[in-house]
Amino acid sequence: MSVREGGAPVARTVLQQCVQARLQVSPAEQDTEAQFVQIDRGVVIYLCFFKGANEELLPRMVSSLLNLRLCESASGKMVSVLELPGSLLIVPQATLGGKSKGRAVQYHSNISKEDGRRLYAAFVSLCEQEVTAAAASSAGTGPGVTVQHGTYGNRQVLKLDTNGPYTHLMEF
Amino acid sequence: MSVREGGAPVARTVLQQCVQARLQVSPAEQDTEAQFVQIDRGVVIYLCFFKGANEELLPRMVSSLLNLRLCESASGKMVSVLELPGSLLIVPQATLGGKSKGRAVQYHSNISKEDGRRLYAAFVSLCEQEVTAAAASSAGTGPGVTVQHGTYGNRQVLKLDTNGPYTHLMEF
Repeated sequence: MSVREGGAPVARTVLQQCVQARLQVSPAEQDTEAQFVQIDRGVVIYLCFFKGANEELLPRMVSSLLNLRLCESASGKMVSVLELPGSLLIVPQATLGGKSKGRAVQYHSNISKEDGRRLYAAFVSLCEQEVTAAAASSAGTGPGVTVQHGTYGNRQVLKLDTNGPYTHLMEF
Repeated sequence: MSVREGGAPVARTVLQQCVQARLQVSPAEQDTEAQFVQIDRGVVIYLCFFKGANEELLPRMVSSLLNLRLCESASGKMVSVLELPGSLLIVPQATLGGKSKGRAVQYHSNISKEDGRRLYAAFVSLCEQEVTAAAASSAGTGPGVTVQHGTYGNRQVLKLDTNGPYTHLMEF
Protein backbone atom coordinates (compact mmCIF):
# COMPACT_ATOMS: atom_id res chain seq x y z
CA MET A 1 0.00 0.00 0.00
CA SER A 2 1.65 3.18 -1.14
CA VAL A 3 -0.04 6.37 0.00
CA ARG A 4 0.89 9.76 -1.47
CA GLU A 5 3.33 11.52 0.78
CA GLY A 6 1.57 13.88 3.13
CA GLY A 7 -1.86 13.18 1.76
CA ALA A 8 -4.79 10.86 1.49
CA PRO A 9 -4.75 8.24 -1.28
CA VAL A 10 -6.31 9.23 -4.62
CA ALA A 11 -7.04 5.70 -5.80
CA ARG A 12 -8.09 2.54 -4.00
CA THR A 13 -7.91 -0.98 -5.41
CA VAL A 14 -8.89 -4.35 -4.01
CA LEU A 15 -7.37 -7.38 -5.73
CA GLN A 16 -8.60 -10.96 -5.61
CA GLN A 17 -7.17 -14.03 -7.27
CA CYS A 18 -9.57 -16.21 -9.22
CA VAL A 19 -9.63 -19.46 -11.11
CA GLN A 20 -12.60 -18.09 -13.03
CA ALA A 21 -14.57 -14.83 -12.93
CA ARG A 22 -17.54 -13.71 -14.98
CA LEU A 23 -18.95 -10.19 -15.14
CA GLN A 24 -22.11 -8.87 -16.75
CA VAL A 25 -21.26 -6.00 -19.08
CA SER A 26 -24.73 -5.42 -20.47
CA PRO A 27 -28.00 -6.29 -18.70
CA ALA A 28 -30.81 -8.25 -20.34
CA GLU A 29 -33.36 -6.12 -22.17
CA GLN A 30 -36.64 -6.92 -23.85
CA ASP A 31 -35.08 -8.27 -27.03
CA THR A 32 -31.52 -9.12 -25.95
CA GLU A 33 -29.92 -11.41 -23.42
CA ALA A 34 -27.47 -10.15 -20.82
CA GLN A 35 -23.86 -10.08 -22.03
CA PHE A 36 -20.87 -11.24 -20.01
CA VAL A 37 -17.08 -11.20 -20.13
CA GLN A 38 -15.07 -13.94 -18.48
CA ILE A 39 -11.52 -14.73 -17.46
CA ASP A 40 -10.00 -17.96 -16.20
CA ARG A 41 -6.95 -17.95 -13.90
CA GLY A 42 -5.95 -14.41 -12.96
CA VAL A 43 -6.77 -11.38 -10.86
CA VAL A 44 -9.92 -9.31 -10.35
CA ILE A 45 -9.07 -5.63 -9.80
CA TYR A 46 -11.83 -3.59 -8.11
CA LEU A 47 -11.05 0.07 -8.79
CA CYS A 48 -12.14 3.40 -7.29
CA PHE A 49 -10.71 6.88 -7.89
CA PHE A 50 -10.93 9.73 -5.41
CA LYS A 51 -10.98 13.48 -6.03
CA GLY A 52 -7.47 14.56 -6.99
CA ALA A 53 -6.68 11.49 -9.12
CA ASN A 54 -5.32 12.24 -12.59
CA GLU A 55 -3.69 10.55 -15.60
CA GLU A 56 -0.15 11.06 -14.25
CA LEU A 57 -0.89 8.55 -11.51
CA LEU A 58 -1.85 5.72 -13.84
CA PRO A 59 1.45 4.36 -15.26
CA ARG A 60 2.94 3.89 -11.78
CA MET A 61 -0.31 2.41 -10.49
CA VAL A 62 -0.72 -0.11 -13.32
CA SER A 63 2.97 -1.07 -13.24
CA SER A 64 2.79 -1.63 -9.49
CA LEU A 65 -0.42 -3.70 -9.56
CA LEU A 66 0.70 -5.91 -12.45
CA ASN A 67 4.22 -6.53 -11.10
CA LEU A 68 3.50 -7.02 -7.40
CA ARG A 69 3.93 -10.63 -6.29
CA LEU A 70 0.34 -11.18 -5.18
CA CYS A 71 -0.43 -14.46 -6.94
CA GLU A 72 0.32 -18.01 -5.94
CA SER A 73 1.84 -20.03 -8.79
CA ALA A 74 1.12 -23.73 -9.31
CA SER A 75 4.30 -24.53 -7.37
CA GLY A 76 3.24 -22.32 -4.44
CA LYS A 77 5.69 -19.51 -5.19
CA MET A 78 4.38 -15.92 -5.05
CA VAL A 79 4.58 -14.29 -8.47
CA SER A 80 3.02 -11.32 -10.27
CA VAL A 81 -0.06 -11.69 -12.46
CA LEU A 82 2.19 -11.07 -15.49
CA GLU A 83 4.51 -13.88 -14.40
CA LEU A 84 1.67 -16.27 -13.47
CA PRO A 85 0.68 -15.71 -16.34
CA GLY A 86 -2.86 -14.65 -15.56
CA SER A 87 -5.71 -12.63 -17.00
CA LEU A 88 -7.20 -9.43 -15.59
CA LEU A 89 -10.82 -8.58 -14.89
CA ILE A 90 -11.12 -4.87 -14.08
CA VAL A 91 -14.27 -3.92 -12.17
CA PRO A 92 -15.21 -0.27 -11.55
CA GLN A 93 -16.25 -0.13 -7.90
CA ALA A 94 -17.23 3.31 -6.63
CA THR A 95 -18.50 1.78 -3.36
CA LEU A 96 -14.83 1.31 -2.34
CA GLY A 97 -14.78 5.06 -1.65
CA GLY A 98 -17.43 4.78 1.07
CA LYS A 99 -16.94 6.25 4.54
CA SER A 100 -19.25 5.57 7.43
CA LYS A 101 -21.14 8.42 9.09
CA GLY A 102 -23.34 6.94 11.79
CA ARG A 103 -25.17 4.08 10.06
CA ALA A 104 -25.00 5.71 6.64
CA VAL A 105 -22.22 5.34 4.09
CA GLN A 106 -21.14 8.44 2.20
CA TYR A 107 -19.10 8.76 -0.97
CA HIS A 108 -18.07 12.42 -0.80
CA SER A 109 -14.39 11.71 -1.60
CA ASN A 110 -15.17 9.95 -4.87
CA ILE A 111 -14.14 11.53 -8.15
CA SER A 112 -16.82 12.95 -10.48
CA LYS A 113 -18.50 10.49 -12.82
CA GLU A 114 -16.96 12.07 -15.95
CA ASP A 115 -13.40 12.13 -14.60
CA GLY A 116 -13.83 8.63 -13.18
CA ARG A 117 -15.03 7.26 -16.50
CA ARG A 118 -12.04 8.82 -18.31
CA LEU A 119 -9.45 7.53 -15.79
CA TYR A 120 -11.06 4.11 -15.78
CA ALA A 121 -10.81 3.84 -19.59
CA ALA A 122 -7.18 4.98 -19.48
CA PHE A 123 -6.41 2.47 -16.70
CA VAL A 124 -7.91 -0.40 -18.74
CA SER A 125 -5.97 0.70 -21.81
CA LEU A 126 -2.67 0.78 -19.89
CA CYS A 127 -3.32 -2.69 -18.49
CA GLU A 128 -3.93 -3.98 -22.01
CA GLN A 129 -0.62 -2.43 -23.15
CA GLU A 130 1.33 -3.96 -20.24
CA VAL A 131 -0.14 -7.43 -20.81
CA THR A 132 0.56 -7.20 -24.57
CA ALA A 133 4.12 -6.01 -23.92
CA ALA A 134 4.74 -8.85 -21.46
CA ALA A 135 3.43 -11.36 -24.01
CA ALA A 136 5.69 -9.92 -26.72
CA SER A 137 8.76 -10.14 -24.49
CA SER A 138 7.72 -13.72 -23.68
CA ALA A 139 8.53 -12.93 -20.05
CA GLY A 140 5.07 -14.07 -19.12
CA THR A 141 1.53 -14.44 -20.44
CA GLY A 142 0.49 -17.47 -22.41
CA PRO A 143 -2.41 -18.41 -24.63
CA GLY A 144 -5.77 -17.33 -23.30
CA VAL A 145 -4.42 -14.49 -21.18
CA THR A 146 -6.71 -11.48 -21.65
CA VAL A 147 -7.75 -8.19 -20.11
CA GLN A 148 -11.50 -7.92 -19.58
CA HIS A 149 -13.42 -5.14 -17.87
CA GLY A 150 -16.81 -3.97 -16.71
CA THR A 151 -18.80 -0.98 -17.92
CA TYR A 152 -18.25 2.13 -15.80
CA GLY A 153 -21.41 3.20 -13.99
CA ASN A 154 -23.23 -0.12 -14.51
CA ARG A 155 -24.24 -2.65 -11.89
CA GLN A 156 -21.33 -5.10 -11.66
CA VAL A 157 -23.04 -8.50 -11.61
CA LEU A 158 -20.08 -10.74 -10.77
CA LYS A 159 -19.52 -14.45 -10.26
CA LEU A 160 -16.17 -15.37 -8.75
CA ASP A 161 -14.60 -18.78 -8.32
CA THR A 162 -11.38 -18.90 -6.33
CA ASN A 163 -8.86 -21.29 -4.93
CA GLY A 164 -8.33 -18.72 -2.16
CA PRO A 165 -9.02 -15.05 -3.01
CA TYR A 166 -5.83 -13.69 -1.37
CA THR A 167 -7.62 -10.34 -1.03
CA HIS A 168 -5.20 -7.39 -1.07
CA LEU A 169 -5.80 -3.66 -0.65
CA MET A 170 -3.50 -1.33 -2.57
CA GLU A 171 -3.85 2.45 -2.44
CA PHE A 172 -2.06 5.12 -4.46
CA MET B 1 -14.05 3.97 7.46
CA SER B 2 -13.28 4.86 11.03
CA VAL B 3 -9.61 5.03 11.91
CA ARG B 4 -8.40 5.17 15.52
CA GLU B 5 -7.64 8.72 16.50
CA GLY B 6 -4.00 9.54 16.00
CA GLY B 7 -3.05 6.05 14.90
CA ALA B 8 -3.11 3.46 12.21
CA PRO B 9 -6.11 1.11 12.03
CA VAL B 10 -5.91 -2.13 14.04
CA ALA B 11 -8.42 -4.06 11.96
CA ARG B 12 -9.26 -4.07 8.27
CA THR B 13 -12.41 -5.51 6.72
CA VAL B 14 -13.62 -5.78 3.15
CA LEU B 15 -17.34 -6.45 2.68
CA GLN B 16 -19.07 -7.81 -0.39
CA GLN B 17 -22.74 -8.49 -0.96
CA CYS B 18 -23.65 -11.88 -2.33
CA VAL B 19 -26.68 -13.81 -3.52
CA GLN B 20 -24.78 -16.98 -2.67
CA ALA B 21 -21.33 -17.74 -1.27
CA ARG B 22 -19.66 -21.04 -0.53
CA LEU B 23 -16.45 -21.54 1.43
CA GLN B 24 -14.37 -24.65 1.97
CA VAL B 25 -13.82 -25.21 5.69
CA SER B 26 -11.98 -28.49 5.47
CA PRO B 27 -9.94 -29.69 2.47
CA ALA B 28 -10.35 -33.11 0.91
CA GLU B 29 -8.13 -35.82 2.42
CA GLN B 30 -7.51 -39.38 1.48
CA ASP B 31 -10.68 -40.76 3.08
CA THR B 32 -12.88 -37.66 3.33
CA GLU B 33 -14.35 -35.19 0.89
CA ALA B 34 -13.81 -31.45 1.24
CA GLN B 35 -16.37 -29.76 3.49
CA PHE B 36 -18.09 -26.47 2.74
CA VAL B 37 -20.33 -23.89 4.42
CA GLN B 38 -22.72 -21.79 2.38
CA ILE B 39 -24.92 -18.74 2.70
CA ASP B 40 -27.53 -17.34 0.35
CA ARG B 41 -28.35 -13.62 0.28
CA GLY B 42 -26.07 -11.67 2.61
CA VAL B 43 -22.61 -10.26 3.15
CA VAL B 44 -19.12 -11.76 2.99
CA ILE B 45 -16.81 -10.16 5.58
CA TYR B 46 -13.07 -10.56 4.87
CA LEU B 47 -11.26 -9.88 8.13
CA CYS B 48 -7.68 -9.03 9.12
CA PHE B 49 -6.34 -7.87 12.49
CA PHE B 50 -3.18 -5.81 12.94
CA LYS B 51 -0.80 -5.65 15.87
CA GLY B 52 -2.49 -3.67 18.64
CA ALA B 53 -5.97 -5.12 18.08
CA ASN B 54 -7.68 -6.46 21.19
CA GLU B 55 -11.06 -7.70 22.47
CA GLU B 56 -12.20 -4.21 23.50
CA LEU B 57 -12.39 -3.25 19.86
CA LEU B 58 -14.77 -6.02 18.84
CA PRO B 59 -18.22 -4.94 20.11
CA ARG B 60 -17.98 -1.56 18.36
CA MET B 61 -16.58 -3.18 15.23
CA VAL B 62 -19.29 -5.85 14.96
CA SER B 63 -22.07 -3.39 15.77
CA SER B 64 -20.80 -1.00 13.10
CA LEU B 65 -20.41 -3.63 10.38
CA LEU B 66 -23.80 -5.24 11.00
CA ASN B 67 -25.71 -1.96 11.24
CA LEU B 68 -24.12 0.04 8.43
CA ARG B 69 -26.44 0.51 5.45
CA LEU B 70 -24.27 -1.32 2.93
CA CYS B 71 -26.84 -3.64 1.36
CA GLU B 72 -29.33 -3.01 -1.38
CA SER B 73 -32.81 -4.28 -0.50
CA ALA B 74 -35.18 -5.77 -3.05
CA SER B 75 -36.78 -2.33 -3.43
CA GLY B 76 -33.41 -0.67 -4.07
CA LYS B 77 -33.20 1.00 -0.64
CA MET B 78 -29.87 0.80 1.22
CA VAL B 79 -30.26 -1.18 4.46
CA SER B 80 -28.03 -3.02 6.92
CA VAL B 81 -27.40 -6.75 6.66
CA LEU B 82 -29.55 -7.19 9.82
CA GLU B 83 -32.41 -5.27 8.19
CA LEU B 84 -32.04 -7.02 4.81
CA PRO B 85 -32.24 -9.62 6.46
CA GLY B 86 -29.12 -11.37 5.27
CA SER B 87 -26.64 -14.02 6.31
CA LEU B 88 -22.97 -13.54 7.09
CA LEU B 89 -19.97 -15.43 5.78
CA ILE B 90 -16.87 -14.44 7.76
CA VAL B 91 -13.56 -15.15 6.00
CA PRO B 92 -10.21 -14.77 7.80
CA GLN B 93 -8.00 -12.93 5.31
CA ALA B 94 -4.50 -12.14 6.55
CA THR B 95 -3.46 -11.01 3.05
CA LEU B 96 -5.51 -7.83 3.65
CA GLY B 97 -2.64 -6.68 5.88
CA GLY B 98 -0.16 -6.67 2.98
CA LYS B 99 2.02 -3.67 2.19
CA SER B 100 4.13 -3.39 -0.93
CA LYS B 101 7.89 -3.08 -0.72
CA GLY B 102 9.26 -2.99 -4.22
CA ARG B 103 7.62 -5.93 -5.97
CA ALA B 104 7.23 -7.94 -2.76
CA VAL B 105 4.28 -7.84 -0.39
CA GLN B 106 5.04 -7.88 3.34
CA TYR B 107 2.74 -8.59 6.26
CA HIS B 108 4.76 -7.14 9.14
CA SER B 109 1.79 -5.25 10.63
CA ASN B 110 -0.35 -8.37 11.00
CA ILE B 111 -1.21 -9.66 14.44
CA SER B 112 0.38 -12.90 15.68
CA LYS B 113 -1.31 -16.12 14.64
CA GLU B 114 -2.40 -16.96 18.23
CA ASP B 115 -3.89 -13.53 18.95
CA GLY B 116 -5.47 -13.44 15.50
CA ARG B 117 -7.14 -16.82 16.01
CA ARG B 118 -8.52 -15.73 19.40
CA LEU B 119 -9.88 -12.39 18.11
CA TYR B 120 -11.33 -14.08 15.03
CA ALA B 121 -13.23 -16.60 17.18
CA ALA B 122 -14.52 -13.80 19.42
CA PHE B 123 -15.56 -11.75 16.36
CA VAL B 124 -17.53 -14.70 14.95
CA SER B 125 -19.19 -15.30 18.32
CA LEU B 126 -20.25 -11.65 18.63
CA CYS B 127 -21.71 -11.70 15.11
CA GLU B 128 -23.73 -14.80 16.02
CA GLN B 129 -25.04 -13.03 19.14
CA GLU B 130 -26.05 -9.90 17.19
CA VAL B 131 -27.85 -11.91 14.50
CA THR B 132 -29.66 -14.00 17.14
CA ALA B 133 -30.65 -10.86 19.07
CA ALA B 134 -31.96 -9.20 15.90
CA ALA B 135 -34.00 -12.31 15.12
CA ALA B 136 -35.43 -12.39 18.65
CA SER B 137 -36.47 -8.73 18.48
CA SER B 138 -38.03 -9.51 15.10
CA ALA B 139 -36.49 -6.29 13.84
CA GLY B 140 -34.83 -8.23 11.10
CA THR B 141 -33.59 -11.66 10.10
CA GLY B 142 -35.89 -14.29 8.74
CA PRO B 143 -35.78 -18.01 8.17
CA GLY B 144 -32.52 -19.24 6.70
CA VAL B 145 -30.45 -16.33 8.00
CA THR B 146 -27.21 -17.75 9.41
CA VAL B 147 -23.66 -16.86 10.39
CA GLN B 148 -21.05 -19.05 8.70
CA HIS B 149 -17.29 -18.74 8.83
CA GLY B 150 -14.00 -20.08 7.57
CA THR B 151 -11.27 -21.82 9.54
CA TYR B 152 -8.54 -19.44 10.70
CA GLY B 153 -5.20 -20.21 9.04
CA ASN B 154 -6.68 -22.39 6.29
CA ARG B 155 -6.77 -21.71 2.58
CA GLN B 156 -10.07 -19.92 1.94
CA VAL B 157 -11.44 -21.66 -1.16
CA LEU B 158 -14.36 -19.39 -1.98
CA LYS B 159 -17.07 -19.26 -4.63
CA LEU B 160 -19.03 -16.03 -4.77
CA ASP B 161 -22.15 -15.20 -6.74
CA THR B 162 -23.27 -11.59 -6.65
CA ASN B 163 -25.85 -9.26 -8.07
CA GLY B 164 -23.21 -6.55 -7.70
CA PRO B 165 -20.61 -6.99 -4.92
CA TYR B 166 -20.84 -3.39 -3.62
CA THR B 167 -17.31 -3.85 -2.23
CA HIS B 168 -16.67 -1.69 0.85
CA LEU B 169 -13.54 -1.18 2.94
CA MET B 170 -14.06 -0.52 6.65
CA GLU B 171 -11.16 -0.04 9.07
CA PHE B 172 -11.20 0.25 12.85
